[in-house]
Amino acid sequence: MTPTRPVVGFLTDFGLDGAAAICRAVILSICRDAQIVDICHTVGKYGIAEGAYLLRTALPWFPVGVHLAVVDPGVGTARRPIGIRTARGDLLIGPDNGLLVPAAEALGGVDEARELANRDLMLPTTSATFHGRDIFAPIAAHLALGMARFDTVGPVIGADNLARLTRVEPRASAGRIEAEVAYVDSFGNLRLAAPAATLGAAFGATADGRQVRVRVAGTTLEAVVARTFGNVPAGTALVYVDSSGDVAVAVGQGNLAQRIDAGVGSAVVIETAV
Amino acid sequence: MTPTRPVVGFLTDFGLDGAAAICRAVILSICRDAQIVDICHTVGKYGIAEGAYLLRTALPWFPVGVHLAVVDPGVGTARRPIGIRTARGDLLIGPDNGLLVPAAEALGGVDEARELANRDLMLPTTSATFHGRDIFAPIAAHLALGMARFDTVGPVIGADNLARLTRVEPRASAGRIEAEVAYVDSFGNLRLAAPAATLGAAFGATADGRQVRVRVAGTTLEAVVARTFGNVPAGTALVYVDSSGDVAVAVGQGNLAQRIDAGVGSAVVIETAV
Amino acid sequence: MTPTRPVVGFLTDFGLDGAAAICRAVILSICRDAQIVDICHTVGKYGIAEGAYLLRTALPWFPVGVHLAVVDPGVGTARRPIGIRTARGDLLIGPDNGLLVPAAEALGGVDEARELANRDLMLPTTSATFHGRDIFAPIAAHLALGMARFDTVGPVIGADNLARLTRVEPRASAGRIEAEVAYVDSFGNLRLAAPAATLGAAFGATADGRQVRVRVAGTTLEAVVARTFGNVPAGTALVYVDSSGDVAVAVGQGNLAQRIDAGVGSAVVIETAV
Repeated sequence: MTPTRPVVGFLTDFGLDGAAAICRAVILSICRDAQIVDICHTVGKYGIAEGAYLLRTALPWFPVGVHLAVVDPGVGTARRPIGIRTARGDLLIGPDNGLLVPAAEALGGVDEARELANRDLMLPTTSATFHGRDIFAPIAAHLALGMARFDTVGPVIGADNLARLTRVEPRASAGRIEAEVAYVDSFGNLRLAAPAATLGAAFGATADGRQVRVRVAGTTLEAVVARTFGNVPAGTALVYVDSSGDVAVAVGQGNLAQRIDAGVGSAVVIETAV
Repeated sequence: MTPTRPVVGFLTDFGLDGAAAICRAVILSICRDAQIVDICHTVGKYGIAEGAYLLRTALPWFPVGVHLAVVDPGVGTARRPIGIRTARGDLLIGPDNGLLVPAAEALGGVDEARELANRDLMLPTTSATFHGRDIFAPIAAHLALGMARFDTVGPVIGADNLARLTRVEPRASAGRIEAEVAYVDSFGNLRLAAPAATLGAAFGATADGRQVRVRVAGTTLEAVVARTFGNVPAGTALVYVDSSGDVAVAVGQGNLAQRIDAGVGSAVVIETAV
Repeated sequence: MTPTRPVVGFLTDFGLDGAAAICRAVILSICRDAQIVDICHTVGKYGIAEGAYLLRTALPWFPVGVHLAVVDPGVGTARRPIGIRTARGDLLIGPDNGLLVPAAEALGGVDEARELANRDLMLPTTSATFHGRDIFAPIAAHLALGMARFDTVGPVIGADNLARLTRVEPRASAGRIEAEVAYVDSFGNLRLAAPAATLGAAFGATADGRQVRVRVAGTTLEAVVARTFGNVPAGTALVYVDSSGDVAVAVGQGNLAQRIDAGVGSAVVIETAV
């Protein structure tokens, strides 16, 4: 029986030059069979919320594995390096700055969190500026070799003591949703921090085809609730349930984020057109 | 005997954030041994012709495999999801919008085309906006596990019923070529929809070193026919046969597309300098 | 016993469209088990020094392997295609233009260099503009199958006959360092061609916390010597020892290279603040 090659998801804000490759090399030096799956390395620099969004929406589609995420403006300071075992059985490795928690919740919740403190699982020398290479990648690789080793990475941290991102909950009432932009995807679509249920709560179960007004970043858009982009004419704004099950705003075959000045955290109001 | 890991070529216009990674994760969840080879994910948004060019020029260098391509402005609408078996034995998976056909022709032609209709080979729930994840990736993965399963994906479609891109044929006469830009590569070189034979037809078999005039996008360039970039001084325009066997226009150690305003579809005339 | 999958590091200036993928496909067609590890494909066009920097800083973290690098403005001209065996046992494959030598030195030095001349190890037809596909990738793949084949690639070249990049040595005296920018990383940090020892030579072993003045590209920055970014307030300039062991200049949570007009080769002076 061939053992299955372990999957290691990998996300950073390192960009496309050599830093992510160095981490890949460290992982393969320790666990030659690792199947490293790059999630994204173009997360905006220091974009913890953006990285957290991408991890949360991507990891549920991954096989159970060891997943490494590094968006770490506090590298080399007192912020803790951590590992989280999810209820599904994944091990998430990265800095304790809120990056990992939303993904852990999407994978069933935090089963156990530990501080990464076992120097035997790190590179022999650890720099002050590249913990991705020196701490996170080698620990992820050792865990990919044997996930049972999670007990040995360092002391348990109570889930309540993990750093968490603040987030603004959406508000839905009859004919109105208020929410924040959680992510702007590469098509320029605004993914909102608002689950599909808010759309039903505001506009009813059969909202499709309804005319709405979207206010965001000082702009008002006349939009239609639709299932998909191709159901509206090119250039028309639409409100839809995105592929992660959240409410989103887009423009047919166009880039909405380039047209208006919205970004992560922008306030959005969707209301019945009058 | 170890079975060979199946190669899955993968091209999209999804950009560099998490969407392509989610598809990779779905593939590996079904076929853990898949060797996914990213072709390009920065195809211009909705750039079907550009994606078709990249597939056509890349896939002939790949091992026979299952290749997945998603540039799909019509996702969720009536356009069909399809699979094409090529004469060489590859299986090409993607939307029926012209994206796959030029590659199929470069791989010996369309042997059999089928509509992807078998829901057992898709994810249990299929969204309206992300068929890459829900339909194309899982079907590609099932086929990577066993290419014989192609018979089961759905009903046969006549090759004549596949959507095709319109294309403008090049015209060559003594001392003159007219053609369109098929692709602008990352070096800014203009790859023309004109096979090398048009260069011979226009300028003879020993065209190297010949002075020509290139008219494109309102600009006239004095150029020389040359074998490679380093054979002309930096900044000099050259006409050459590119690595895909087509005629191309470039400028030595410079970016021609940035210097003039040409793009896919721009008309180009190459004629004897007078 | 399962044989270990050979690692092939891969760096080019090909950008993100299909060219690097075609090379990957050629490698896998010859050596299906190759574990290709992309180092960087967004090296500035024709950026030999930038590519050399990335190879030099990345490859020491890789397992011993066959590593392929193509930044090759002279493709198709008289410049030689070469292979270098390093003292560590790696095989580096690419053009003889200085790209490979700094990495070879970082891997223990040049053990043996050879011109790539054996056509049996190349693709049957070699174009004038894409030696990455036709010469370098297939030879790298054949060597990944069996590194002993290095003897057969072509005639030995004396290490003294390899093309080398000129480089400006740093100068350190009491209270002063003069050096050049060797690389601008994706965070906008200036990585200098100056090893950590120059910092000690100029400012003593306990330089941390010292106020210094940095002059670069017509700008003077008040900076502090620090271990890591998070040890200075956001927006404050710092001088630090980077993760490759060289002196670097950055700005806390900001992009220094965007703020000033510095690039590879810019002169930098760091001196005691008065």
